[in-house]
Amino acid sequence: MVQVNRFEWSRPAREARHSPRRRLQGVRPGLPACIECAQTCTACADACLGEDSVADLTHCIRTDLDCADLCETTGRVLSRQTGNNAEVTRAVLEACAAACKSCGDECAQHSSHHEHCKICADACQRCEQACRDLLTSLG
Amino acid sequence: MVQVNRFEWSRPAREARHSPRRRLQGVRPGLPACIECAQTCTACADACLGEDSVADLTHCIRTDLDCADLCETTGRVLSRQTGNNAEVTRAVLEACAAACKSCGDECAQHSSHHEHCKICADACQRCEQACRDLLTSLG
Amino acid sequence: MVQVNRFEWSRPAREARHSPRRRLQGVRPGLPACIECAQTCTACADACLGEDSVADLTHCIRTDLDCADLCETTGRVLSRQTGNNAEVTRAVLEACAAACKSCGDECAQHSSHHEHCKICADACQRCEQACRDLLTSLG
Amino acid sequence: MVQVNRFEWSRPAREARHSPRRRLQGVRPGLPACIECAQTCTACADACLGEDSVADLTHCIRTDLDCADLCETTGRVLSRQTGNNAEVTRAVLEACAAACKSCGDECAQHSSHHEHCKICADACQRCEQACRDLLTSLG
Repeated sequence: MVQVNRFEWSRPAREARHSPRRRLQGVRPGLPACIECAQTCTACADACLGEDSVADLTHCIRTDLDCADLCETTGRVLSRQTGNNAEVTRAVLEACAAACKSCGDECAQHSSHHEHCKICADACQRCEQACRDLLTSLG
Repeated sequence: MVQVNRFEWSRPAREARHSPRRRLQGVRPGLPACIECAQTCTACADACLGEDSVADLTHCIRTDLDCADLCETTGRVLSRQTGNNAEVTRAVLEACAAACKSCGDECAQHSSHHEHCKICADACQRCEQACRDLLTSLG
Repeated sequence: MVQVNRFEWSRPAREARHSPRRRLQGVRPGLPACIECAQTCTACADACLGEDSVADLTHCIRTDLDCADLCETTGRVLSRQTGNNAEVTRAVLEACAAACKSCGDECAQHSSHHEHCKICADACQRCEQACRDLLTSLG
Repeated sequence: MVQVNRFEWSRPAREARHSPRRRLQGVRPGLPACIECAQTCTACADACLGEDSVADLTHCIRTDLDCADLCETTGRVLSRQTGNNAEVTRAVLEACAAACKSCGDECAQHSSHHEHCKICADACQRCEQACRDLLTSLG
């Protein structure tokens, strides 16, 4: 278990325009789900590479790698107070949700054979939901 | 100048479903623009940190960092043959275009004072256009 | 709090040469520290950008950004079973420890003024120690 | 072909201590090799996943993924003027060189069968050499 930090620092007046506190509080919840999903997808891709049936898992590995990259980048964006970039935040969350949906669906197909795919499918579903919740809260 | 490789390997039949050659050829052109923009945004953020007026450039630095992350991830996704994930590819390209638009607009405001912002604004505009062209070609 | 997954899958015989279980068990502990430190450094860099005294924190921001990148990459390498690359693993852990030392020392200088730097200095120290423990266990 | 930018901006006096111009000029040359190698390794991993003999290429894919991550992070560090972190820069370059050596050796074993491995082995060798040259120039 790792801790996720998002600092509640006192904001100088010149930044008030860019990052209203209300929006921050809305953005924050998705971060742990992104970080967990990024790491889980990286490890699932590697676990797939260790399977005898790796030739049947190549699409799964690719969706894992795409999803890991998207989740990591989304976690970075959510860790920043880029403020009035609501459009960028929304687009990143949409992309992350799409990657999680794709990877979660693919891993779910292998869940009965591979425990790591089951764990990864669950992480993807949580992260997709977290992204969609954030999108709703951003309005 | 660096070279961008996307291998034209002979595709086994089992992959034909996932990655029609037509789509590949459509996806490929955006890759160099993403890689260039990622590196330029990383360097522009650092150059902004070296300016005496860094306090006026904090929003620029944040958009640079977001854009660098998005462009790098998009470059990775475009380097893969994830195939039938057209929805993911589209969402990633939309997010990358949004980040490039935001960063390009911000850097353009500082172009007359800082050469690195001018160079970065140009790279962002090229990358945004490349993403939009790819989106059009994906239909 | 996020969960870190490293799958204990049954290893096919053909992989036994590459990834002895003993080594795996030694490598595993550092992963949560790397992921936590990566996210904390990303957030600390952003918090520094929000301070009125940002001009005095530019070196801190740069060490944050370097450390975030190193920790993220180290977390990815540790999430893989690259096996007989003990030399690569060792070199990555050395680089991560150096980045954590540099960033931790820098953040410690600002700890009395900025809570985020104090939190980050602590995360860097934990991650540096985790990397050094892993290096010792790898022999 | 993509362009690599490292801005030669006028440095404020307060930064002179951190980043002597002499060191910058020494660091710069390795950047294009890192960016090229990162992208080539990402694409080679994907190309390996497209091969019928993917089960024989799993170690190659893992070294590709590790090397891509290391080269990308090294490229980011070299794009920054973190200045007096000579120890960090050195450790990162050592790690990158180790990853390039490992991946280059592995890809070279498959060069006669797979053109992408041949291209990737060459990129790894160039990047390893660039890192070692930089290490020499840093003293």
